[in-house]
Amino acid sequence: MDVREKDIIAKYFSPLSKNAKGADELKDDIAVLGNLGSGLLAINMDTLVAGTHFFSDDDPTILAQKALRVNISDLAAKGAVPFGYFLSLALPKTATEAYIKAFAHGLAIDQRNFNLNLLGGDTVKTKGPLTITITILGLLSSSEIPRRSTAQAGDDIYVSGTIGDGALGLLAHPSYTGKNRLTAKYSRHIGHYLCPEPRVELQPIISKFASASMDISDGLLGDLTNILNSSELGAELNVDHIPFSEETKSILLNEIDMLPTILTGGDDYEILFTAAPQHAADIEKQARKLHFDLTKIGTMNAGSELQLLDGNKSLNIAGFNLSHSHTW
Amino acid sequence: MDVREKDIIAKYFSPLSKNAKGADELKDDIAVLGNLGSGLLAINMDTLVAGTHFFSDDDPTILAQKALRVNISDLAAKGAVPFGYFLSLALPKTATEAYIKAFAHGLAIDQRNFNLNLLGGDTVKTKGPLTITITILGLLSSSEIPRRSTAQAGDDIYVSGTIGDGALGLLAHPSYTGKNRLTAKYSRHIGHYLCPEPRVELQPIISKFASASMDISDGLLGDLTNILNSSELGAELNVDHIPFSEETKSILLNEIDMLPTILTGGDDYEILFTAAPQHAADIEKQARKLHFDLTKIGTMNAGSELQLLDGNKSLNIAGFNLSHSHTW
Repeated sequence: MDVREKDIIAKYFSPLSKNAKGADELKDDIAVLGNLGSGLLAINMDTLVAGTHFFSDDDPTILAQKALRVNISDLAAKGAVPFGYFLSLALPKTATEAYIKAFAHGLAIDQRNFNLNLLGGDTVKTKGPLTITITILGLLSSSEIPRRSTAQAGDDIYVSGTIGDGALGLLAHPSYTGKNRLTAKYSRHIGHYLCPEPRVELQPIISKFASASMDISDGLLGDLTNILNSSELGAELNVDHIPFSEETKSILLNEIDMLPTILTGGDDYEILFTAAPQHAADIEKQARKLHFDLTKIGTMNAGSELQLLDGNKSLNIAGFNLSHSHTW
Repeated sequence: MDVREKDIIAKYFSPLSKNAKGADELKDDIAVLGNLGSGLLAINMDTLVAGTHFFSDDDPTILAQKALRVNISDLAAKGAVPFGYFLSLALPKTATEAYIKAFAHGLAIDQRNFNLNLLGGDTVKTKGPLTITITILGLLSSSEIPRRSTAQAGDDIYVSGTIGDGALGLLAHPSYTGKNRLTAKYSRHIGHYLCPEPRVELQPIISKFASASMDISDGLLGDLTNILNSSELGAELNVDHIPFSEETKSILLNEIDMLPTILTGGDDYEILFTAAPQHAADIEKQARKLHFDLTKIGTMNAGSELQLLDGNKSLNIAGFNLSHSHTW
């Protein structure tokens, strides 16, 4: 497909959702569908394809966990607590019973970790690569949902955890053969790429304080640009404030050229959210209570540009390849 | 995959659903998830893969309708009224913008036909065949859901419409190259294969009278066997009572060897349900009122066998290849 997937969605699929208020014109990661028991039902659907989103030789147990976690992450970013999921597996001939057993074992592990149940699904045969689609369901306790479009000028911008571990993990993956291959054993990064940590612990903070929020699946700068565009605002980030792991810092010390990759590469699965500045002290307090790393990295403004500062100097990000989210 | 998909589900996936009551141990087509507004939320997920479930050169507009309809059919069989769906598209490089536009047009047509909205989804790239996964949501007005497992001995067995049109449509499809290829222009059958009619009109009858119910996606005899096994019962069918279209009858007149294909082939998307005999008159009356063809084809019994009668003579179906449903 040559056309940009983002344009395809806006042009052909978004009109099909126009009468469903909770679908938010497909501009967001989740749909919200009214009260189910004690909360609002939130649903997200994500697909992973071998050769596109993971390597065919990735361990099936960890792959199953990744497939669940990228979906959990979308709900977590909105403050929704997941409870169940539907699974579609398109299995190539090469998928042995042992492979499926190991995959199911990974699902079982993360069902316990995240208090989930399998609710249904489908298994089919394919002549193509293994294709995993998960539709995940969760509950929102508040009807004020932090969409991509609901940031306000003056809001602080926060991220959880550290940025770039997923992108570097891809480059260090033993099966990766593309450009910028990292040859040292960056086990932290590889682990992050193979099995990210969805930030479910942040739920109380997101539901209470976030004005806009999303998970970072397509790179910090690309996803922040999504919030900017949806909210029709600008933002100023300071690169010195962006949190990096020690391993990432040491890579940056040797190879500053890796900065664009780190800031625009995918697979972080951290949460990027905005909040009004008057909540700053409460957010900091709660994060400390949860022993959770949250970092204020910048400020939303009334402009329309994303400005990246290095101290007082503006960095030119025009050449950065901001990948575009295909998830709706 | 050499192992039978049914066994894979029972062995590895069903245990993952054991704490979710509404998932019915993945033995049924839908999961039921509690009250959402005016009804019980019912969800089904089905995947179609090019080369497995449809031909790569099928018209994308009609293909989109088929993808929706096979999902609508699962809900209709349980008496649920669909209201929205999530769509995952894994697109090969060959999928042009024109193709996607035509596909979206098919979705739009059936959104109007069936009063549906697109709620969300995902589009990804694949090196394999086009893969379409739909998760469809609907509402049930009654909490007595006709599962596969809830038939009673003595119940009448009904089917909607006619049997075998989908299976013959596959054999007559211009791109079909397998055995038993039909060379005449069976346009009725091809049309049925390409774009089945989900039996949503039956909703009032199913909700009120059906003890067990499912849609026939994997052949009448195979799917009836699913009901028998799940309900731990037997059944007696009379082949003279099974409804066939005039075109199917004329094929059978010339080639009685086609009978197994007609009774076990997929893609009927008619509804197969059981009901207590005291409801027979009411069911007949309601079907007439709806101008809807419903046929009583047999009776459930306390045995464990499926017996197919031709008049008083028992037909040997041991050699019939009952395909097995992989949908849960």
